[in-house]
Amino acid sequence: MESWHRHNLLDLHELTRDEIALVLETAKSFKEVSTRDVKKVPALRGKTIVMLFFEPSTRTRTSFELAAKRLSADTINITASSSSLTKGETILDTARNIEAMSVDMIVVRHQSAGVPQYLAEHLRASVVNAGDGCRAHPTQALLDMFTIQEKLGRLEGLNVGIVGDILHSRVARSNIWGLTKMGARVMLCAPATLLPVGIQQMGVEVTHDLQQVIKSSDVLMLLRLQNERQQEKFLPSIREYARVFGVHHQRLKAAKKKILIMHPGPTNRGVELSADVADGEHSVILEQVTNGVAVRMAVLYLLAGTKAEIIGQKPEIVKVKPGT
Amino acid sequence: MESWHRHNLLDLHELTRDEIALVLETAKSFKEVSTRDVKKVPALRGKTIVMLFFEPSTRTRTSFELAAKRLSADTINITASSSSLTKGETILDTARNIEAMSVDMIVVRHQSAGVPQYLAEHLRASVVNAGDGCRAHPTQALLDMFTIQEKLGRLEGLNVGIVGDILHSRVARSNIWGLTKMGARVMLCAPATLLPVGIQQMGVEVTHDLQQVIKSSDVLMLLRLQNERQQEKFLPSIREYARVFGVHHQRLKAAKKKILIMHPGPTNRGVELSADVADGEHSVILEQVTNGVAVRMAVLYLLAGTKAEIIGQKPEIVKVKPGT
Amino acid sequence: MESWHRHNLLDLHELTRDEIALVLETAKSFKEVSTRDVKKVPALRGKTIVMLFFEPSTRTRTSFELAAKRLSADTINITASSSSLTKGETILDTARNIEAMSVDMIVVRHQSAGVPQYLAEHLRASVVNAGDGCRAHPTQALLDMFTIQEKLGRLEGLNVGIVGDILHSRVARSNIWGLTKMGARVMLCAPATLLPVGIQQMGVEVTHDLQQVIKSSDVLMLLRLQNERQQEKFLPSIREYARVFGVHHQRLKAAKKKILIMHPGPTNRGVELSADVADGEHSVILEQVTNGVAVRMAVLYLLAGTKAEIIGQKPEIVKVKPGT
Repeated sequence: MESWHRHNLLDLHELTRDEIALVLETAKSFKEVSTRDVKKVPALRGKTIVMLFFEPSTRTRTSFELAAKRLSADTINITASSSSLTKGETILDTARNIEAMSVDMIVVRHQSAGVPQYLAEHLRASVVNAGDGCRAHPTQALLDMFTIQEKLGRLEGLNVGIVGDILHSRVARSNIWGLTKMGARVMLCAPATLLPVGIQQMGVEVTHDLQQVIKSSDVLMLLRLQNERQQEKFLPSIREYARVFGVHHQRLKAAKKKILIMHPGPTNRGVELSADVADGEHSVILEQVTNGVAVRMAVLYLLAGTKAEIIGQKPEIVKVKPGT
Repeated sequence: MESWHRHNLLDLHELTRDEIALVLETAKSFKEVSTRDVKKVPALRGKTIVMLFFEPSTRTRTSFELAAKRLSADTINITASSSSLTKGETILDTARNIEAMSVDMIVVRHQSAGVPQYLAEHLRASVVNAGDGCRAHPTQALLDMFTIQEKLGRLEGLNVGIVGDILHSRVARSNIWGLTKMGARVMLCAPATLLPVGIQQMGVEVTHDLQQVIKSSDVLMLLRLQNERQQEKFLPSIREYARVFGVHHQRLKAAKKKILIMHPGPTNRGVELSADVADGEHSVILEQVTNGVAVRMAVLYLLAGTKAEIIGQKPEIVKVKPGT
Repeated sequence: MESWHRHNLLDLHELTRDEIALVLETAKSFKEVSTRDVKKVPALRGKTIVMLFFEPSTRTRTSFELAAKRLSADTINITASSSSLTKGETILDTARNIEAMSVDMIVVRHQSAGVPQYLAEHLRASVVNAGDGCRAHPTQALLDMFTIQEKLGRLEGLNVGIVGDILHSRVARSNIWGLTKMGARVMLCAPATLLPVGIQQMGVEVTHDLQQVIKSSDVLMLLRLQNERQQEKFLPSIREYARVFGVHHQRLKAAKKKILIMHPGPTNRGVELSADVADGEHSVILEQVTNGVAVRMAVLYLLAGTKAEIIGQKPEIVKVKPGT
């Protein structure tokens, strides 16, 4: 097992197989902490971790905040609405100001792809991507892989079906990078309008036949249909989607005996999956949530052990004279 | 004195006289903690307490948060606007997700009666009711009883007048349960439109004559007139209400020498009571606030000592097929 | 060096030269804390500090919150939107309720001048002014003075130019009080509409000639043009302002070699200053942010050492009968 040299966590794309394995291994020991009576270790005492969320998210923010607190770090919450961005400041200035308060890590979520990468290039604080646009959500993929490995003992050689709105899903994208790297076979299943063109180049198979995916999968990941984004544009109707792509008890009869049903949440019961499947014997949806805290503790812990090697390059100076 | 076996605090209805006495007794020693230079005890170190507020509330949320912090627990704030509910998730799924992060207690406020009870039936984490609809607000009633007992030495045999909007008041309802159980006599006074039909069955007397209540009471609880809810519907006008039911200096001349004036806050000065009464010698309004922290410390402390005896029953599986 | 007897920090107006020097001296040792691996000292363990912000502010709130946490205090955030004010309670009642929860300090920001002073007169908790209307922002001025002293070794005899919207700037006002008291010479430069009449009586010079100020200054403080407030009312256009009062590379050629460029943030790049100046060799804008945490640690620490000498005078009882 290698040691950890990475200063930021931006996407699984950039992680090696060994690095992913190290995070999962580290998370295993942190999972035990949350089962203790005193759910706290002093590992990051006196470190400051800022949650900088430009997009609202109860569950991811809470999971990171708990992870940080169980490592004894001090946490600060900053949400878009309370941020200076509304006063016309650039996002980089906001982030550099936060960093200037001797902040060790910035956990950032943003609606635009690439923002965490951009900040990481200009800051000395560690940047953790908590979801950027439709691009990446690395800690979600890590907790998904952790859950699979814990339940099925391995990732290598497994068949993982990902069903739903692949087009808008940073969760799908990060899982594809991670799972294929760890030796799993990934099959995507979605309506044609919700499948990015050329996605096969990521090393995955594609089908529109849900039943085929159910039959061959060891793990079935169902993606949230983001009602708020796509009504009428990508689909005839939510009802139609649920009829064709929703997973319910009846459909699971063709599945392997030990199939895992996963969902990154929040679920739309009656759309992506029926209530009986969400609460059924194959579902590990709540265990994903539990493992999320452990995986994020591992990520924060590993990143805290590194120092910024490059003293954050000065931002390119744009020569703009005021008033011209 | 009995020991504590209860896993949730939902309403005073369900508590025995001994259990109420135990909370009040425990609060007494915690009150001393907040007078220390270092206002902190390690009792709940490493416990996680989530404040899940679907209705805004500065004072109750702050009081619980301070109580938790002075017990050294880690706290997380979740408000409705930041919650996943806006994304169509059910309230039970939201709560189960929070619990899955190894949360020990959930302090919940909700605009609908019965939500804390519903969550308690399905969660293993302790649930504390911080106010549900017009139904119950048990920690408010406990802090009111604590204040009375501290000031007058007992609850048994006292006359307590509750004046104002009984209809919409969870504070009144919880106080009626608690006070009558502890042996106090409760007299309600309100405009006819703000008195629930059949309220006498809770073991209280009812009158529309404020002066009679003032004359006979050892304690006068004034309820907040919730302007936001009832303008013009239940009352001719706020001004009219204040004229008939507002308590001012002049009216208190008929009262007992040691009468206590209480109010759960926030007060509408010039409506339920005049400024001179709010700030006067009989007022214990701010002491109620101080005692609120002590009582909530006691509640959190006692609940933390119990384990979920039933491993939270699985929620009833509603057989709904997606798309049908 | 004198010792500290002050219970509140409301404005620099009231501080003596020695008191200002003591804050700056104390901040020096606290600055070192934020460079440690464990950025935390136990000085205020078990103290409760409430951030009561009626006006949104990421940076000031975060800076105070970090300062409090690095001193090991417990912190509570209360923002106007979540506060009871929306329920018609007076601001004094809100503050007295917060104080009643055994809170040690209240850091308050309010859009109206005088609110911190008003609260301080009626509370026993220490009140720290985090900005009130256009009146004062003492910790900003203290961190500015700290930064100047750190960079240039002294305040006495320096020429400080303050450029921009003086009229609406509590930062300018507090800096004028502080800097002149410490023996610096202050020159103001602004469009006529953004200069308060009679400001010279504060002991400052006034000019409309930016180039003259740049030439003579050791320190140049640029104020934020508050777009949100003044479009079209005070200025022909933002563009016009930037052309005449914006500081860019070319203009700085006339400046002293070691001139400091300061800005309280958030900056409007291309308005008050060009990007090359904001990121240039003279800029200490991010160091101001870093020093802000140290200065606020010093302020909280010094205030915590004092007890309320007067047991907060009872508020004057306004004789208002309800309903009249």
